[in-house]
Amino acid sequence: MQQNEFEVPEINEGLREAIQHKLDNKAKPVGSLGRLESLAMQVALIQNTLTPELHKPVMLTVASDHLICAEGVSACPVEITWQQVLNFLQGGGGIGLLSRVYGMDLHVVDAGVNFDFDPHPKLIDAKVRKGTRNFLFEPAMTMEECMAAFNNGRHIVAKFNYEGTNIIGFGEMGIGNTTPASALMSIICGLPVKDCVGPGAGLDKDGVSNKGRVIEQALAKHGVSDNVMENLARFGGLEIATIAGGMFEAAVRRMVILVDGFITTAGMLVAQELNKRVLDYAVFAHVSDEQGHHKMLEYMNADPVLAFGLRLGEGTGGALAYPMMQGAVAVLSEMTSFEEGQVTNTSHIRFEEEAEK
Amino acid sequence: MQQNEFEVPEINEGLREAIQHKLDNKAKPVGSLGRLESLAMQVALIQNTLTPELHKPVMLTVASDHLICAEGVSACPVEITWQQVLNFLQGGGGIGLLSRVYGMDLHVVDAGVNFDFDPHPKLIDAKVRKGTRNFLFEPAMTMEECMAAFNNGRHIVAKFNYEGTNIIGFGEMGIGNTTPASALMSIICGLPVKDCVGPGAGLDKDGVSNKGRVIEQALAKHGVSDNVMENLARFGGLEIATIAGGMFEAAVRRMVILVDGFITTAGMLVAQELNKRVLDYAVFAHVSDEQGHHKMLEYMNADPVLAFGLRLGEGTGGALAYPMMQGAVAVLSEMTSFEEGQVTNTSHIRFEEEAEK
Repeated sequence: MQQNEFEVPEINEGLREAIQHKLDNKAKPVGSLGRLESLAMQVALIQNTLTPELHKPVMLTVASDHLICAEGVSACPVEITWQQVLNFLQGGGGIGLLSRVYGMDLHVVDAGVNFDFDPHPKLIDAKVRKGTRNFLFEPAMTMEECMAAFNNGRHIVAKFNYEGTNIIGFGEMGIGNTTPASALMSIICGLPVKDCVGPGAGLDKDGVSNKGRVIEQALAKHGVSDNVMENLARFGGLEIATIAGGMFEAAVRRMVILVDGFITTAGMLVAQELNKRVLDYAVFAHVSDEQGHHKMLEYMNADPVLAFGLRLGEGTGGALAYPMMQGAVAVLSEMTSFEEGQVTNTSHIRFEEEAEK
Repeated sequence: MQQNEFEVPEINEGLREAIQHKLDNKAKPVGSLGRLESLAMQVALIQNTLTPELHKPVMLTVASDHLICAEGVSACPVEITWQQVLNFLQGGGGIGLLSRVYGMDLHVVDAGVNFDFDPHPKLIDAKVRKGTRNFLFEPAMTMEECMAAFNNGRHIVAKFNYEGTNIIGFGEMGIGNTTPASALMSIICGLPVKDCVGPGAGLDKDGVSNKGRVIEQALAKHGVSDNVMENLARFGGLEIATIAGGMFEAAVRRMVILVDGFITTAGMLVAQELNKRVLDYAVFAHVSDEQGHHKMLEYMNADPVLAFGLRLGEGTGGALAYPMMQGAVAVLSEMTSFEEGQVTNTSHIRFEEEAEK
C-alpha cells in the first residue's frame, strides 16, 4: 500500500485568524458561546470559508454480523442485527426516530448482514459477505474482503457528496461488534485488552472478562501487523471497514464527519491511522458510558460535544449533535455583529480564565 | 406572606413505574439512551402522561438595568442593555439567532430597562422602574416594586400557557446583573461571597475582587432577612424578580422550565425557596464557565444537559437544550417498542454499571 493512496486535503490554517476575528465581532462577549464557537471554527476551516453552511445532512447506519458471537461475546441474540435494519427502514429504533426528529436523511447500509433483504429505497446493498468469520480461529476477513468493504464506504460517501451532502454522520448496527472494535482499539491505541472492553449492550462482569480473553487469544493467534488494514482484516468487522472507508472519503471531500459511539469511533481510529488529517474533519458527537470510548477519544485528543451517557450506537449521538452543528454554523454565518446590531463593541474585553478562585 | 400563596402541584410519582416500563420496552438496550431517557421521564412526570408532547415553545428574555453598575461591577457599558433588547427584537444577538434556529418563539420582556422603547410585537412592556437602585447605598427595590416584577412574570407566563405553551425558556439581558445574582446566591446557598462572584462578561481579577467587596458591604449594610422576597428586594434585579415569578408560575401550571445560565439560575434559586417543588419542573440547560454557576447547580442537585462553556446568558443555553427536549419526548412518545419494531425483546438484560475497570 502506498502512502499516496491515502491523501487528505490540508485545512487552510491561514483562514483561522479571519474566522476568529469574525467570531469576536459578533454582538456578545468574546468567546461567550464556548463550544459552539469552536465547532463553528472547525466547520469554517473544513469548508474553507467565513460563511459555512450545512447541506443535505445524511446519516449512514452501517450493519453487519459477526461470527465471533459464537464465543458468547454479546448479551444479545444475533437476529437483532437484521431485525433492527428492517426496523430502522420503517423509521423505528433509536436512529430511525432521531434522524427524523433532527432532519437527517437516514440510509442503512448492509455491509454484511446474515440475512437476505428485499430492496428498499433507504437500504444500500454493500454486502461483502454474510458476516465476518470467527476470528478466534481464522481472520475475520480476507484482505480482499476488507478492502472491498472499505472501498464500498468510499463509494457510498462519494455519491452522497456528489448529490450535495457536506455533513455526514456514521452509525452502526451489528450484534457482537464491540469485540472487533475493542481488538482494533487495543492494537491502535496500544492499550491492554482489559482497558478496551466493556459491557456493550449489557454483558455482565463474567461476560466482559470472557470477551477480553477471546480478544487476547485471537491477538496471540494471528499476531499484530504494522499495517492497519491487515489488522482490520484480521480482527475487524465489515461495518467497521465500511465506516472507516466512508469517513476517509468524507475527509478527502472536505465533509464534516459526525462520529458516534464506540464502534464508529473505532472506524475513525482506523481512518486516522491512514492519514492523521482525517481528524480535522471529525466532530466527536458524544462520549458514551462504554469505558473504552473515553480512552479512544483521549487517544485522538477529541473533545466530544455531548456527554449523555449514551450506549446505543446506531448513529444516535451523531443525530443529537447535528442540531448543535446547525447552531454553530449559524453563529458564524448569520449572527449579527456589533456593528450590524448597533451594539457598543466590547471585543477589546478579553475574558481571563479563572479570574478568581 | 402565607405559605399557601405559593402552592405548586405535586408530581405524580405513581406514574414513574409505568413510564420506566414504556422506556424499557423501546427497541434498544435498557437505559441506552442515557440522559435522553431521564429527560423523557421528567417531562412525562411533569405532564402526567405516557405520551408527552411539547407545544408552542417560548423563550422569554427578560431585560433590566442596575444602578449598582456605578460601582464598577461590570466590564461592559450600561447602554448595551437597551441596545441588545433592540438587537434581539430584530432577530440579532445570541438569543435572536438561536431561538430562530431551534424554533422557539422569542419574546423580550422589559422589566426595568433605562430606556424608552417604541412598541414592538415581540416586546412585552413590564417595566416597573428604569433599573434597580444602587444597593450599596439603598435597597435595590421596594418590596412593592419587587412583588410587582415577580407578579409580572407570573402574569406573562400564565398568558403564554393559556395560549398553549407548555415549555418555556428563560433568558436575561442586564449589564451588571451578575452582581445581584451573586448576592442572592451567597444568601440562599449560604456560601461566602468570594465563592459566588466571577468575571461575568469579562471583568479582570481586580474587577472580580471589587465586585465581591461591593456585595459584602451591601450585605453588611442592609442585613439578610429570613424572607427570600425581602432579600430579592434588597439585593436583586427586576429581571431576576420577573424571572423568578415566571418560573414559579410555570411550575404552578405544570410547564417544562428551561433554566439557562448564572442569572436565570439565580431566578430559579429564588423560586425554589418559595416551594421546592418548582425544581421538579426545571430542566437545567447547561453548566456555564462562571464558577458560581457550578455551585448553584450543585446546591439544587441539578444535572445540566449541556457543558458548552457558555457564558453569554440571554437564554442561549436553553435554546440549545430545546432540541434535546424534542428528542427526549420523541423517544417516549414515538420510538418503536420491541413489539412494534418486531425486534427480539432484550429488556430483561440489565446493564451493570462499571462491569469492568
